[in-house]
Amino acid sequence: MESVTRFSVSLDKKLLHELDRMCREKGYDNRSLAIADMVRAHLVEHRQQFGEQDIAGTITLVYDHHKPHLMELLTDIQHDHGDLIIATLHVHLDHHNCLEVLAVRGQAEPIKKVADSLIAAKGVKHGKLTITTTGHDLPA
Amino acid sequence: MESVTRFSVSLDKKLLHELDRMCREKGYDNRSLAIADMVRAHLVEHRQQFGEQDIAGTITLVYDHHKPHLMELLTDIQHDHGDLIIATLHVHLDHHNCLEVLAVRGQAEPIKKVADSLIAAKGVKHGKLTITTTGHDLPA
Amino acid sequence: MESVTRFSVSLDKKLLHELDRMCREKGYDNRSLAIADMVRAHLVEHRQQFGEQDIAGTITLVYDHHKPHLMELLTDIQHDHGDLIIATLHVHLDHHNCLEVLAVRGQAEPIKKVADSLIAAKGVKHGKLTITTTGHDLPA
Amino acid sequence: MESVTRFSVSLDKKLLHELDRMCREKGYDNRSLAIADMVRAHLVEHRQQFGEQDIAGTITLVYDHHKPHLMELLTDIQHDHGDLIIATLHVHLDHHNCLEVLAVRGQAEPIKKVADSLIAAKGVKHGKLTITTTGHDLPA
Repeated sequence: MESVTRFSVSLDKKLLHELDRMCREKGYDNRSLAIADMVRAHLVEHRQQFGEQDIAGTITLVYDHHKPHLMELLTDIQHDHGDLIIATLHVHLDHHNCLEVLAVRGQAEPIKKVADSLIAAKGVKHGKLTITTTGHDLPA
Repeated sequence: MESVTRFSVSLDKKLLHELDRMCREKGYDNRSLAIADMVRAHLVEHRQQFGEQDIAGTITLVYDHHKPHLMELLTDIQHDHGDLIIATLHVHLDHHNCLEVLAVRGQAEPIKKVADSLIAAKGVKHGKLTITTTGHDLPA
Repeated sequence: MESVTRFSVSLDKKLLHELDRMCREKGYDNRSLAIADMVRAHLVEHRQQFGEQDIAGTITLVYDHHKPHLMELLTDIQHDHGDLIIATLHVHLDHHNCLEVLAVRGQAEPIKKVADSLIAAKGVKHGKLTITTTGHDLPA
Repeated sequence: MESVTRFSVSLDKKLLHELDRMCREKGYDNRSLAIADMVRAHLVEHRQQFGEQDIAGTITLVYDHHKPHLMELLTDIQHDHGDLIIATLHVHLDHHNCLEVLAVRGQAEPIKKVADSLIAAKGVKHGKLTITTTGHDLPA
């Protein structure tokens, strides 16, 4: 038997509207079921154990560079982990939006933490860690 | 200025517990911020279905640059789609292996096709298309 | 297919000797290749005088990202000229210092103005505009 | 009294045409005088001693990626000096021409050598080493 808990969530009005549209389009009976699925999907990703494996990868971020203090925060985090971040490619999508791609290399766990703190920064609209390989251990 | 709406969600107790733990581990200030990020991430993925949607993203490739004709092939494909590919960041992982990240923007379908042909190229050890957003259509 | 012309040049004996030494030190296969490179380099410089020439180039900046408001200012300038700036490569030199390289393309005059305003920004320790060619108008 | 030597040079026909036009525009009496000036200018640059100073900088290259074996050569040189080259930004200017910017850091002399061998590669239309600072030793 499942024990269900009820709690409240605050979302931007437009974002909620988009969520509801996606729920309809995906065929969910209600919002809670859709959110439960999202949480489970993210938990699975989050739990992935990369251990002490040496990985290469990219962190992709989209954000509004006009958001106060956001750029300083993102750059502070990046400079604090200069050993993991090789270089960053910044593309100016339009007057507001930036696409930033960080090339990273190192142990999986600390890289995951840097990605998490960048993506969690308020004002980052979308972020994603793409883990690939250093190529060493993968025959062509 | 943001307009925020409050609504209630029902989740399995254990799932909520796991969500809260993930929020702490990822450094979110509260549950709503985490759920907003999940919703946005899923919206981005969901919109991938719509072929004429304008998207931004990255294509990540790892390959051995000593593989005969591989670099010419990859560069030929990239130059043939100069309208979709903004710039490419190339990192020399070691004597053999390259990490290449392409920043892309344009219609989703042709971008997927370019990614497919790059990833399918013989000698590319790992490749991944990461679709994000142009930021235009995504509320903060 | 290239059409090559042969012609003769008169040089001071000592200067020719120095040219040949430089060719060896720089790794040129022969004198003609070295002279062709010199001619092209001087053509690129010579053409910079004509303000409406279509050019490609890079703007190199070194700055301390902890300087208040500097990053916002630099990014604002870059986003205001998104038509000239293709992409920006950001390297984290250490905890404080950033090396930023902007790939630019467009008319020479507006590019020079953008470079000037970036380099003049308070907190930029060193900046340089490197003008090269779009390749179109430069024979092999 | 000067001792003059006569030797022959092979140049692409179009490039020779451009050289002659530049000679006229700059007011040179003949080709040999112009080439002598170019050689001297490059000798001055080449002789610049940077010693063991730690520098940061960029190497900018424009080349035709269809040139046989050029990309492999450039990439081989870059991978052989992975300790000096942090990352490379590649922009597809058109169907033929590439703009490539390498972010470099290390001792000045070896960096100059890498730059020389990249720029001397047959098919590179224009190349330039831009030396800046690591920021350490430069007060804001």
